[in-house]
Amino acid sequence: MASSFGQLFRITTWGESHGGGVGVIVDGCPPRLKLSEDDIQPDLDRRRPGQSKIVTPRKESDTVQILSGISTTGQTLGTPISLWVKNEDQRSDAYNEMKDKFRPSHADYTYFAKYGIRAWQGGGRASARETIGRVAAGAIAKKILREKFGVEILAYVKQVQKLIAEVNPDKVKFSEVEANIVRCPDAPMAEKMIRLIEKMRRDGNTVGGIVEGIARGVPAGWGEPVFDKLEADLAKAMLSLPASKAFEVGSGFGGILLTGREHNDLIRARAGKVYTTTNRSGGIQGGISNGETIFFRTAFKPVATVMHEQDTIDEQLKNTTLKGRGRHDPCVLPRAVPMVEAMTALVLVDHALRQKAQCG
Amino acid sequence: MASSFGQLFRITTWGESHGGGVGVIVDGCPPRLKLSEDDIQPDLDRRRPGQSKIVTPRKESDTVQILSGISTTGQTLGTPISLWVKNEDQRSDAYNEMKDKFRPSHADYTYFAKYGIRAWQGGGRASARETIGRVAAGAIAKKILREKFGVEILAYVKQVQKLIAEVNPDKVKFSEVEANIVRCPDAPMAEKMIRLIEKMRRDGNTVGGIVEGIARGVPAGWGEPVFDKLEADLAKAMLSLPASKAFEVGSGFGGILLTGREHNDLIRARAGKVYTTTNRSGGIQGGISNGETIFFRTAFKPVATVMHEQDTIDEQLKNTTLKGRGRHDPCVLPRAVPMVEAMTALVLVDHALRQKAQCG
Amino acid sequence: MASSFGQLFRITTWGESHGGGVGVIVDGCPPRLKLSEDDIQPDLDRRRPGQSKIVTPRKESDTVQILSGISTTGQTLGTPISLWVKNEDQRSDAYNEMKDKFRPSHADYTYFAKYGIRAWQGGGRASARETIGRVAAGAIAKKILREKFGVEILAYVKQVQKLIAEVNPDKVKFSEVEANIVRCPDAPMAEKMIRLIEKMRRDGNTVGGIVEGIARGVPAGWGEPVFDKLEADLAKAMLSLPASKAFEVGSGFGGILLTGREHNDLIRARAGKVYTTTNRSGGIQGGISNGETIFFRTAFKPVATVMHEQDTIDEQLKNTTLKGRGRHDPCVLPRAVPMVEAMTALVLVDHALRQKAQCG
Amino acid sequence: MASSFGQLFRITTWGESHGGGVGVIVDGCPPRLKLSEDDIQPDLDRRRPGQSKIVTPRKESDTVQILSGISTTGQTLGTPISLWVKNEDQRSDAYNEMKDKFRPSHADYTYFAKYGIRAWQGGGRASARETIGRVAAGAIAKKILREKFGVEILAYVKQVQKLIAEVNPDKVKFSEVEANIVRCPDAPMAEKMIRLIEKMRRDGNTVGGIVEGIARGVPAGWGEPVFDKLEADLAKAMLSLPASKAFEVGSGFGGILLTGREHNDLIRARAGKVYTTTNRSGGIQGGISNGETIFFRTAFKPVATVMHEQDTIDEQLKNTTLKGRGRHDPCVLPRAVPMVEAMTALVLVDHALRQKAQCG
Repeated sequence: MASSFGQLFRITTWGESHGGGVGVIVDGCPPRLKLSEDDIQPDLDRRRPGQSKIVTPRKESDTVQILSGISTTGQTLGTPISLWVKNEDQRSDAYNEMKDKFRPSHADYTYFAKYGIRAWQGGGRASARETIGRVAAGAIAKKILREKFGVEILAYVKQVQKLIAEVNPDKVKFSEVEANIVRCPDAPMAEKMIRLIEKMRRDGNTVGGIVEGIARGVPAGWGEPVFDKLEADLAKAMLSLPASKAFEVGSGFGGILLTGREHNDLIRARAGKVYTTTNRSGGIQGGISNGETIFFRTAFKPVATVMHEQDTIDEQLKNTTLKGRGRHDPCVLPRAVPMVEAMTALVLVDHALRQKAQCG
Repeated sequence: MASSFGQLFRITTWGESHGGGVGVIVDGCPPRLKLSEDDIQPDLDRRRPGQSKIVTPRKESDTVQILSGISTTGQTLGTPISLWVKNEDQRSDAYNEMKDKFRPSHADYTYFAKYGIRAWQGGGRASARETIGRVAAGAIAKKILREKFGVEILAYVKQVQKLIAEVNPDKVKFSEVEANIVRCPDAPMAEKMIRLIEKMRRDGNTVGGIVEGIARGVPAGWGEPVFDKLEADLAKAMLSLPASKAFEVGSGFGGILLTGREHNDLIRARAGKVYTTTNRSGGIQGGISNGETIFFRTAFKPVATVMHEQDTIDEQLKNTTLKGRGRHDPCVLPRAVPMVEAMTALVLVDHALRQKAQCG
Repeated sequence: MASSFGQLFRITTWGESHGGGVGVIVDGCPPRLKLSEDDIQPDLDRRRPGQSKIVTPRKESDTVQILSGISTTGQTLGTPISLWVKNEDQRSDAYNEMKDKFRPSHADYTYFAKYGIRAWQGGGRASARETIGRVAAGAIAKKILREKFGVEILAYVKQVQKLIAEVNPDKVKFSEVEANIVRCPDAPMAEKMIRLIEKMRRDGNTVGGIVEGIARGVPAGWGEPVFDKLEADLAKAMLSLPASKAFEVGSGFGGILLTGREHNDLIRARAGKVYTTTNRSGGIQGGISNGETIFFRTAFKPVATVMHEQDTIDEQLKNTTLKGRGRHDPCVLPRAVPMVEAMTALVLVDHALRQKAQCG
Repeated sequence: MASSFGQLFRITTWGESHGGGVGVIVDGCPPRLKLSEDDIQPDLDRRRPGQSKIVTPRKESDTVQILSGISTTGQTLGTPISLWVKNEDQRSDAYNEMKDKFRPSHADYTYFAKYGIRAWQGGGRASARETIGRVAAGAIAKKILREKFGVEILAYVKQVQKLIAEVNPDKVKFSEVEANIVRCPDAPMAEKMIRLIEKMRRDGNTVGGIVEGIARGVPAGWGEPVFDKLEADLAKAMLSLPASKAFEVGSGFGGILLTGREHNDLIRARAGKVYTTTNRSGGIQGGISNGETIFFRTAFKPVATVMHEQDTIDEQLKNTTLKGRGRHDPCVLPRAVPMVEAMTALVLVDHALRQKAQCG
């Protein structure tokens, strides 16, 4: 199950940084949805390397092919949709030193400890290339949510190191997010973020930050009590992304500074429409959506690959050092935005179908 | 699956605040483990109401009964273990006003929106009583981890509102946690926390905070790549607890203030033993344990039930107000400690068995 | 997962022949269904020992209690329904000899080989008492199918040893099945079957046979391609029943004597209603219902406990003999009828919800 | 979940008869197993069209490619193994008439009823091409069972229409099965079967039969009580194969003609080794293997596509007729043999890992 996600709208990703490519199977997709590569490629383009000066310059077009699940008239058949992206530009010689040495704060050592074998070329299964499958499947999920349920998914860079953007989750637009290469809708702050990331690149260093994800238009009633709470599934979804270290929904960690009287979201109704006067719950109460905007934040640590000599060990457990080489992201945030959107959409479409099944 | 958790060591909880009680089925438990109610009751006692002056004064003994899965010689049979705790002290008249009104920032409205029906007596399935099943199952998981894998699970109160304890995750002892009623091993800070919670109770108000969870002795290699990363499963486990709003592992949100050079955990080996010189990863890299102490933090919001009139609506969507009545926790933290331990143990024992299955 | 069945309407059974009883958790039940013990007890009464002269005379009332999942107004809440039946009349001294010896063709030896421990009192988890949970959950499933989908589930004894009943699956009525104690709607044949079973009991011997199960009113479109075909899930459901050895749907084994030209079910339509002129498919084509009556047969072997000395071994692997004692069924068929109905209903209600989720 | 099978060794198949091909993801494979296309292709060759004069003459090489999960040194990495077989020789014009008409006793109508859309070219997802993924994954499972557990999987044609082969499940060899094109180890009967199938082809007709599957060397203790009994999972596996209608294990339907005294498998031990004097249980008791040879039979109906005009309807529900065209199997049995082996291996390897997880 390690490579599958979702109960009813279930995806299974495969692939490493070396080999025949990466891909995903999407099972459980509703039938008769218009779908082609054109629905998927734009999100992959937002994820791919080489898209701007602040991401890794690796040249990969990440062109998606649909191998199954679509009728000759371009509609989903209800059967598994197989999506495939070929690997290109594999320079495994850039990784030669990693053959014997474990990169600090990467998954090299832990994969080796787990499996007794590892794909040292480019990180193997731990490579961010794995997220291609998620983003591709997420594009389908977003389309279903938009067309069938009127739900809009969005994510953006909220913070890079100490630079914090001001964004209104209820109002922010996709075009504002995509207006700059760092994907931060607060334009002046975006400029500062870009300069910081460029400086980090020049220093051979890296930096982390926070992506905020939102879902607007989710009706009250999605999510499950107990284990499969909406926030629990979102937390799992986000913490399953490479380099993520933290998740908070609504008021999150900050909420603990308030008392209960201050923190509660008071409920009001107007013309048969229910709303809360504040949204510290982040659109979810007791695991179930309440109709307000869902929003949450995910922290991504600074990228582990730095262009500086650092202490590590080799496969024989001898102490040594390793210096990052090759083409890497100084900051994962701009490319993490479509990943956060994808995982959010996958969680929500699954719960939409679950709600239809039990209570529809 | 909403009420089930785990792949191989799988628990299924049931029960509401009214009715015949609450319980849990534990499926997949290894056979021939000595097990009796005495292994489980102590953790339930740490969770139960009325245990101290800073928790709800409700009188419930929460006495567990094992109904199945144990041989007449007191060993697990390998078959499902059914655990049951009867409901006592149900004063549903205390909830009469809730029959028509939704409590703000509770799950009353969302359950109603989801199911079109709700158990208004004491919160129904959203009641914290549901966690009895988790804590009971977690006690079994902790025993297996301790006896078969040498893994120790521990949790404690790290913060109450602005009061932050100093605790060393590598050294803190269970006896230090249990030395005071707030379950904070930093004794002077514990005093302040208790005073703050008492003040909140007097004010009819509530307060939140942070529980830190740790696992010591986890061998390198537990956890899965991609979706079922150890931190992802822990995040889901924690965010599935009532009132939790945030999760961070290792350096968490704070880690983004560092650069990659500063943040990386350098690897060293001594006498064939691998370790890292820092532990910003929180014992997990790429979803897989690296042998260091696993530690993470979970934020619990201030309890929503306050003894003050607050705006809300009734089932007819008419605006009204509601004032909390009855016996409630001014702070959920002391009782959340065994819940965090339980969920941590459930995640880890499941991954222990998964590791044995695929790579053992 | 061993003790759970179903994807969306998921049951988890627990309990052994000794201990606190047996039970089942039903998760995923649609909300707002009127439900009380009175909906469940009748099927348990059809399953219980002591109901007639041709089943085991053990005295167990098998009275079901609903512990959770129901509102105070008697409707399902959408949360897990916990059902419990206490164990009574446990005479474990009747099983003393089994403490050391394995009963031939029972699960005694295999449980011991698997777990290294076993509950020798009454068969432990392999006891037919485990099916109480299935029959109880199946009663709920049948009610949903009947009330929400217009589907009728029925089963009856088709054959006892060489005695074969003539029954029309499209016409047979529940009252005809329940008209006699062997649950065979062919009254003259039922008489013969009863006499045969009584003779077997007198001889301390046992006999097997076939139960036919049917589902009428299933709309076209339930079931899944590939692995979760309706017939595949039914086959698993039936072969998971104690003592079952074979399953066939529609023409089954007999169908191979025909050629393709003879075997095909020709399709016709009249007034917008599609039907087939024969029903060798048994109402399922390619794993998906086609609107015709679903029917299938399950073979149950003769009960393994005979009142005659038979060769076996003890736990020390020494050759010895064992003679059945105590109160046993000379034929499992009459009590298997409600089990077959229950498992059929569980399969179908699950697929009904799955269909609603993906294609509804 | 419809397209996934297995709990720990989990496969997910994808693909239709049209489009980019068919494939399978194998998740949960143990690491460090030597694996290349050469381990998989031979079973695909046994399954592919055009292999002999008694199967469909379609020309498809069915060449498998491994896209992921293998190290550059040719070992499994423990990560998902993606296998892909391109579609070739698609003559969708041969299917033009099927665009509007439903083939009798095929899944055309039921897919349409389910999804409201269907891939009419060659049967879409219901095409036997889907089993390529199963056979490919099964080849890996067989290798693990053979090398790590000493288990041998075998299947063969036991019966074609009325022609019944005599085969000893304990002795039959793979070379005997592969000695003729019908895959029946009883050579004289194989000749008759071949002649019958050739006659059917000449008549534009088709014929069905029985495949027997066996597993030798399975240790006592595999399989689970209750729902995931070994025979239940095998029954599901077999009934999920296209055109299968029936399953029986051990004595099966025939066992009901015996009394309990006659049917019981008596247990003996010699030199610490346990065995039964007969094997009517088919190597499984109470869902768990007992160490004897596991054997079972699966019935495959006569292929539905016949070269004769037959009554049917079109998508507008108008009565019409349809005559099979193109290149089809007169008998599915010879090609079903590797499918039965594959599904058997998938069930067993999954239970092997489950046993290791819980009781190992």
